[in-house]
Amino acid sequence: MIKVGVFGANGRVGKLIIDDLKESEGVSLSSVFVRNTLNYSVDSSVIVSTDIELFLNSCDIVIDFSLPEACETLLEASLKTPKPLVIGTTGLSAHQLNLLKQASENMPILYATNMSLGVALLNKLVYQAAAALEDFDIEIVEMHHKHKKDAPSGTALTLGESAALGRGVDLDKVRVSGRDGNIGERSKDEIAVMALRGGDIVGRHTVGFYNDGEFIELNHTATSRNTFSKGAIRAASWLVDKEVGLYSISDCLEI
Amino acid sequence: MIKVGVFGANGRVGKLIIDDLKESEGVSLSSVFVRNTLNYSVDSSVIVSTDIELFLNSCDIVIDFSLPEACETLLEASLKTPKPLVIGTTGLSAHQLNLLKQASENMPILYATNMSLGVALLNKLVYQAAAALEDFDIEIVEMHHKHKKDAPSGTALTLGESAALGRGVDLDKVRVSGRDGNIGERSKDEIAVMALRGGDIVGRHTVGFYNDGEFIELNHTATSRNTFSKGAIRAASWLVDKEVGLYSISDCLEI
Amino acid sequence: MIKVGVFGANGRVGKLIIDDLKESEGVSLSSVFVRNTLNYSVDSSVIVSTDIELFLNSCDIVIDFSLPEACETLLEASLKTPKPLVIGTTGLSAHQLNLLKQASENMPILYATNMSLGVALLNKLVYQAAAALEDFDIEIVEMHHKHKKDAPSGTALTLGESAALGRGVDLDKVRVSGRDGNIGERSKDEIAVMALRGGDIVGRHTVGFYNDGEFIELNHTATSRNTFSKGAIRAASWLVDKEVGLYSISDCLEI
Amino acid sequence: MIKVGVFGANGRVGKLIIDDLKESEGVSLSSVFVRNTLNYSVDSSVIVSTDIELFLNSCDIVIDFSLPEACETLLEASLKTPKPLVIGTTGLSAHQLNLLKQASENMPILYATNMSLGVALLNKLVYQAAAALEDFDIEIVEMHHKHKKDAPSGTALTLGESAALGRGVDLDKVRVSGRDGNIGERSKDEIAVMALRGGDIVGRHTVGFYNDGEFIELNHTATSRNTFSKGAIRAASWLVDKEVGLYSISDCLEI
Repeated sequence: MIKVGVFGANGRVGKLIIDDLKESEGVSLSSVFVRNTLNYSVDSSVIVSTDIELFLNSCDIVIDFSLPEACETLLEASLKTPKPLVIGTTGLSAHQLNLLKQASENMPILYATNMSLGVALLNKLVYQAAAALEDFDIEIVEMHHKHKKDAPSGTALTLGESAALGRGVDLDKVRVSGRDGNIGERSKDEIAVMALRGGDIVGRHTVGFYNDGEFIELNHTATSRNTFSKGAIRAASWLVDKEVGLYSISDCLEI
Repeated sequence: MIKVGVFGANGRVGKLIIDDLKESEGVSLSSVFVRNTLNYSVDSSVIVSTDIELFLNSCDIVIDFSLPEACETLLEASLKTPKPLVIGTTGLSAHQLNLLKQASENMPILYATNMSLGVALLNKLVYQAAAALEDFDIEIVEMHHKHKKDAPSGTALTLGESAALGRGVDLDKVRVSGRDGNIGERSKDEIAVMALRGGDIVGRHTVGFYNDGEFIELNHTATSRNTFSKGAIRAASWLVDKEVGLYSISDCLEI
Repeated sequence: MIKVGVFGANGRVGKLIIDDLKESEGVSLSSVFVRNTLNYSVDSSVIVSTDIELFLNSCDIVIDFSLPEACETLLEASLKTPKPLVIGTTGLSAHQLNLLKQASENMPILYATNMSLGVALLNKLVYQAAAALEDFDIEIVEMHHKHKKDAPSGTALTLGESAALGRGVDLDKVRVSGRDGNIGERSKDEIAVMALRGGDIVGRHTVGFYNDGEFIELNHTATSRNTFSKGAIRAASWLVDKEVGLYSISDCLEI
Repeated sequence: MIKVGVFGANGRVGKLIIDDLKESEGVSLSSVFVRNTLNYSVDSSVIVSTDIELFLNSCDIVIDFSLPEACETLLEASLKTPKPLVIGTTGLSAHQLNLLKQASENMPILYATNMSLGVALLNKLVYQAAAALEDFDIEIVEMHHKHKKDAPSGTALTLGESAALGRGVDLDKVRVSGRDGNIGERSKDEIAVMALRGGDIVGRHTVGFYNDGEFIELNHTATSRNTFSKGAIRAASWLVDKEVGLYSISDCLEI
């Protein structure tokens, strides 16, 4: 049984991970790290700690969905007490990303801004399609709930990067986020990444490849946020016995 | 048999109309107006004319897919020689639109920027949905081939106006054509009209209505440009015996 | 404040209604009917009763999502103690449907197998499209989670009936539920209602209309089951002051 | 310049190939084989022949879209006069398929029932997705025009086989072509291949993978039949200098 420590246990995904661990085989929740144990309630068998050393020593692997500063603290502590880390925290600064790379020389770390198995696979398929369908125009559409504040989504940008990589272009130079007016014919290289917002859509991404005579559209739809927590747990099971190094979510797919 | 005159016979849609008239019941091509008869070839039974009076006198109804200036000439001539007119020319100026309204006091005129039966119906459905689903967020996505130079499509804007009408808002004030960066939560009234471009897509429009718990998406896809020529012929058959006045394509749908 | 009584309070939708009533304006939960009060827990202000007379007397309107036999009991009791009824119970027998019609001579009853606002609207749109697009081939595809035991869904069949009504045909005579082998060309009147199953899809229905040159696809997707409970609450607010009679969910849409 | 001979020059795809060769770089039409030269018209530089030996000797490679019996004749003649062959003829018998394999010991032969680049790629992606997403339910939907007589399409069955291969199951044992009545919960292994028919749809295929929390849908849409002729020409350019052996369309994708 793999003992999992959850860092960021009060966050939205953190809570889902704690729930989903109960139903997952081969893993169990051993400890949570919280800033304040007051009012925090969890099964009595679980170690609830504000001491990061104690937290790290009580688990085999850590899953982190927290905030950039908290994640930084975790990375620093792990240099002393190395543990395999599954990091899902987004918005890391260049400094924090560097720290993460550095830490991965001492322990296995899997870092991904989207832990869904489906999105990980989709990135692989998009890369292949972009490379194979060289004459096809690429367009990406994402849709999220009306409360989402940034656009396009991080996942859409990552998909755009997978497509750009398949084409050997730089997404920043070819990305289009809207079209209005007499814009002229579409240029060959441009990749639109369009953001729709509305209702309670958890997340929907479509990458399209269009040519004269045919087109392909590859779509991923998240129907619940549990897909992110389950992906993180799956990643943890896979990472726990890996060698030191930096891994991506697609590394844990066997394709 | 209704005798149809085609104005703009050398244009892309004009040519399709001439072809499709052969396979349509109850109508036949009687005459075409061209600027230059040299090298123009058509069945010998058809009157080919550069004289607009002769052209008008040789048909029961005119279908026009030309350019704004040519359409203006047609409208002026029709004041002297009134004939029912089906006008599909786009990009008319305010002056030309006024002339069109004026002419419709002397003859029945049907004016539409999209002659497809499906799009006409879709506008009706969108209006109803926008009015009935008052809490739903509205988003529109259109896709056309890579050669299209303007965005969003006229059809998408018309669909946006149908939606705005159902909500009692002004499309110009609520329309969004792209999203990028930290834009904050979606406002209740905004209506995105997003334009995708690629391959040889004839025309695809989706109007979506999104709420917590459910959403509706109404889609129209044109699979060939003949849908525009056939729609114009259908409109002509309907318009030929109507009273003077200005009609829209949806008037000829019996719903 | 409208006092709502929930019948079938232990059912999946019943529980959602009790939750959603807390967040709805102008309505409040006054009473629940359960077979057994033991272990049943709810806010102390709510009357929990196994006595159907007491239950009916303590509310202004009843929402029922129960089983056919329980619904029959409710209908019989309501003959003595008439109250407006919103009935969402499915699988009613011919006898029970007759009883429902009879009861609606004494009180307003709204009966619907799908309380979603979107599906109610979609049925209206489908009827209109089927009538207006007389040359178009109609095909319906529904998708639900892998646990659903019957196919096609009741909602898909109702949509099929709306389409058939628009065409003046009998769904039972034209419905197709699969295609395999050398089946020959599609007949003009047939309407396929195809059922897909997989994952945790709450409910997705698409009604398509296909012609040479163009097609229209009208889609409804439920993203959570709350759409059914919210629809029922909305229906209750609308029904409470109506005259005696039998109403459908589309009657409460103002279109 | 590669000299291409077209076998089945009077067929629907054969005619498109002859047109598309004019606009393709590095290839040109050198000869056509027809049963009867009377009334057959083509550029004067092209050899029109009813003599299969002469036909084979006047080209570098043959593209064949004919009927099974004619294809058999071609294969037999090629044993004497080997030439690289691109075979797109469908409905070959077991005997004819054997003959094809035998012939491929003397010359390179590419055999595919769908020459579209997009469908070839889609088969690769479907195989990978089926293998990687082992817990996901697989469902396939295809749509074609109302005149298509068989169901499901050959392409849909091939996609089903790609999916089944990724799962290690036999499509024949798990394929479902319709669902109706009280069918019970979906079994884990079943793969529905559902056929829709209507309008003038050239070809649309969607392979879906559905799990709790997320799903992926991979779609290919043909917008014109030229995609098949262009795919065949691309395949010919690729095959012409290959070694003897039997190739599939996906072999000529460099992924």
